Parts: sequence; C-alpha cells; structure tokens
Amino acid sequence: MRPPLTSTNRLAHRADGTKQADRMVPEETPVALSYAGTTHAVMMASPADLEDFALGFSLTEGIIALPEEIEAIEIEDLAGESGGAGIDIQIRLKDKANTRFEVRRRRLAGPVGCGLCGIESIEEAMRSVRAVGAAGLRLSADDIVSSVKLLSRQQPFHAKTGAVHAAGFYIPGKGSKGEIVLAREDVGRHNALDKLAGALAKAGIDGASGAVVVTSRVSVEMVQKTAAIGSPAIIAVSAPTALAIRNAEVAGMTLAALVRGDDFDLFTHPERVTIGVPDHVA
Amino acid sequence: MRPPLTSTNRLAHRADGTKQADRMVPEETPVALSYAGTTHAVMMASPADLEDFALGFSLTEGIIALPEEIEAIEIEDLAGESGGAGIDIQIRLKDKANTRFEVRRRRLAGPVGCGLCGIESIEEAMRSVRAVGAAGLRLSADDIVSSVKLLSRQQPFHAKTGAVHAAGFYIPGKGSKGEIVLAREDVGRHNALDKLAGALAKAGIDGASGAVVVTSRVSVEMVQKTAAIGSPAIIAVSAPTALAIRNAEVAGMTLAALVRGDDFDLFTHPERVTIGVPDHVA
Repeated sequence: MRPPLTSTNRLAHRADGTKQADRMVPEETPVALSYAGTTHAVMMASPADLEDFALGFSLTEGIIALPEEIEAIEIEDLAGESGGAGIDIQIRLKDKANTRFEVRRRRLAGPVGCGLCGIESIEEAMRSVRAVGAAGLRLSADDIVSSVKLLSRQQPFHAKTGAVHAAGFYIPGKGSKGEIVLAREDVGRHNALDKLAGALAKAGIDGASGAVVVTSRVSVEMVQKTAAIGSPAIIAVSAPTALAIRNAEVAGMTLAALVRGDDFDLFTHPERVTIGVPDHVA
Repeated sequence: MRPPLTSTNRLAHRADGTKQADRMVPEETPVALSYAGTTHAVMMASPADLEDFALGFSLTEGIIALPEEIEAIEIEDLAGESGGAGIDIQIRLKDKANTRFEVRRRRLAGPVGCGLCGIESIEEAMRSVRAVGAAGLRLSADDIVSSVKLLSRQQPFHAKTGAVHAAGFYIPGKGSKGEIVLAREDVGRHNALDKLAGALAKAGIDGASGAVVVTSRVSVEMVQKTAAIGSPAIIAVSAPTALAIRNAEVAGMTLAALVRGDDFDLFTHPERVTIGVPDHVA
C-alpha cells in the first residue's frame, strides 16, 4: 500500500525571499468500492484505513445493517498496472445482505443515474434520515469546546499537511474530562466520517454513547452518516447548510457548529446540552 | 426558484452569555443534471446560477466541446412535489453531440458503476488531463496575491454565511492592476468552478487569457476542470493534493496555492510567474 502523505518540492514565496523547499502534501487516490464484482462508487480518498472505509461506507450508505453481514473485504492497490493508480476494494456480502443489495441495485439500475429520471435520482439523494434516540447522551458546553481541541491532537496527517479533514468520536466523562476514543483522517470529509463509522463498528463502540466531531462544514450527508452511526450529536468546526439543519432537526440530533475557541452555535436540539450556569446562581 | 441563503435561529454560546439570535446559512439542494431524459449526476449545490452550472458541467466533464452543442436547458424546481426538494435540469443536446454522448453512455453503462469493474471505474475517474498552452499568460507575484484579495470582494454569499466556496477568473492588467472579471459561489467547490466555466463560456471569455482563482483546496478534479476551461494557471487559498500536483505538472499548468497575505507557494510551472526582483537590482 502507498503512503497517505508525500513530500513535494515547491517554490516558497515569502516576505524575506523566494526559495525551493519541501512540503508534505496529502495523496488523493481513486478508491473503487465494489459489491458482488460491480463498482458501486469511486471516491477520491486518502489511501489509509481502507478496511474501515469499506466497512463504514457499507454501514452509512445502508448497504449492510451490521458488520457481520460482510463476508470478506479484499483491497488491491492497482498502482503500476496499465498506468492505473487507484485502489480497488472488493466487498463480498453474506447471502441475505447480498440478495437485499441486488434487489436495491436492480431497482436503481445503478447508484445514481443510469436510466433514472431526475425526480427519482433526487428522491434517492434525499433519503430520509434515521431518527436518533432522545434518551442517553448529555453534553456540557465544556464537552463541546474540548471535543474539538482534543480532536486536533489526533490529526497526524493534518499536522503535517494542513490539508486533511478529520472525524472523531467523543465520549463525555463522568464527572471528569471526556475523550476522543477514535479518530480518522481523509482528504474528503465524508470519507473521514465513513472511516470513523467503520472503526467504531470494528471496535464495537455504541454510536449512541457519544458525539461525532468533525473539522469541516456540515452538509446533509454528514448528518445522514452521523444518524447511521446512531450518534445523537454532531459537533463541527465550521458552519452547517440549511438542509443539514433541517435534517438534524427532524432526526432529533443536536447540531453544534462554528466551534471557535470557547464559542459555539447550537442549531438544533439544545435540550441535550447543559449550558454552564455561573456557580453562584446554581 | 428558491433563494441560495436562508436565515436560521440558533443559540449562540459566547463568553458573555448565551442567547438566541439569527444567522444566515447556505441552502444545499440536490440538483439533477439530465441529458436525453436520463440523469447523469446529482450534485448537492447552491440553488443559484444554475444555467451556468449546466453549461459549465457539460463543458468541464467533456459532454460537449462548445456551448453551441446545447440546444436547450430546462430548469425545474421540484419543491413542494411529493416532499421532493430538488431541482431537475434537463439538458437537450444537438444531434451530433447527443450521438457522441449516447455512445459514451452505452460504453460506461452509467456515470460510474452500473456494471463496471473497479479497474474500469478508476480509469474513468483518472481520465487524462488536457494540456494547456505554454504560450500566453504571464503572472507576477503581485497578480497572485491580488487575485485572491480581489476575489474575496466578490463573494456575497460567503460574506453573509462564512460557509460558501468561490471560483473566479483573474485577468492580469497591462502595466496596471488586473481584475476578477467573473466569480461564482457554491456550497461545493467543484460546483463553483463549473458555474464559473459556464459563465466564462456564456460571456465568450477565452480561458487562456487568465487564471482560475479558488478559495478552496486543490483536488485533482479542480485541475482537470481548470484544464477543460483552457486556463494555464490555478491559484488557490488552500493546499493541493499530490495527485493534483502531478496532473498540473503533466498538463503544463501553473499551480499556486496556500496564498496567505503576501505569501504563496508555487508547486508547478513557476516559469509562468515573474517573482518580483527588488528595484535596485532590476
């Protein structure tokens, strides 16, 4: 397997002069995800944690409901063959999951397009988001602020390149500080989240026990994937779209975004968050 | 047509307290691009400049070579119908372009997937980038720095939301300051570039006459689309991927990135850029 980062020489133009110097940049590789021998999607992704990616994508896209439905994942790096520079991931599903997938595929005649009219394709893209449970997870304002700070310490690719997204899973502490129990990085923010989903499933961590933390903006797909993980909260460094907000609202998901220093915005379901009350008032 | 931005109420947590307040957020809408009645792609996009989007996507994806090959673009907002909240763009191609498209579609049996094996899908994703001309455009260090500053003044959606990407076209001045002659915004950076491509084609502006300027990172697709526009240079606020660099190198394209204040990095083909020499030396 190739490394996810590479060193490149470039001309750095600075106030005190221009000089040749090396800089680390992230690799970006076409990764084909195939089920039953046929490609379902090709993503431009970081070539790292690809088994997590295959498992997580299968889960968040609803191709499987449980990790056990996958029989085998085979990862082949095609580098060198006929100039092809991609990675092919062949996913073999167990009988029942495979039948369900084939039925869905025949209905769609492909992932998107291929005979679908615009209205059908849009309906597939706008699939309804899974509702998350109302019980369980509670977060404090401090949890939200710390989760982003803690995630930043688990971004080795980003630390070297300044150009890679991360998704982490934060579990609040009981009376003490919480922690990021798992984190994954990728050039694509959706891929980073899929890799996290796969890593959580592999580790047997219940998605309802914590919050998804992302370094990026929040699109509707990020909310859909967080719901598929079963997490009732998403915390993001950047802003959400209006559609992401509407989906989080309907799903019962807490959406905290624009976490900058100690400030943040709560867009949906603030009832899950305890905003600190000054000691002399409480 | 719906507006590309919307106001939302959220709980703003700040050092001096927590209060309800409104904030503008960008809309994100599934936009289906259909040719000959069949969907080719569904993009999550800002509902603005959709005719530019249809024209630009058709050009940068190589579906047409010239704007004249499009016979008609029909844009239908499906809001309200069966809960569908997308926009359907039907693109009718003229005879010759339509035949070429049908042949390509039969070969692919869909955009990506639908019967393709992983290797074929990856080869389609890694389509070779068009070479840009060596002659023509020259840029100074000042052009690179100003192009980004000038673009920032033409980002009305971003100014209101802080969450939208932009792509602009910069033409250097002769002895004077250059200017951003056109700019487009979108929640997706690839869409913003496609919209710019369409706007340039509609305005009859030669892509070889200037540089593409983007507020985002540079993926390989951004280089491919810039090459399809015919521009020999891409200038970006954030970092490029390794694959983007390799493609820009092969295409003969100047890739300037990480433009921050007066600093920037030149990753490929610096020969097109005149690095300022102090007056007393020149």
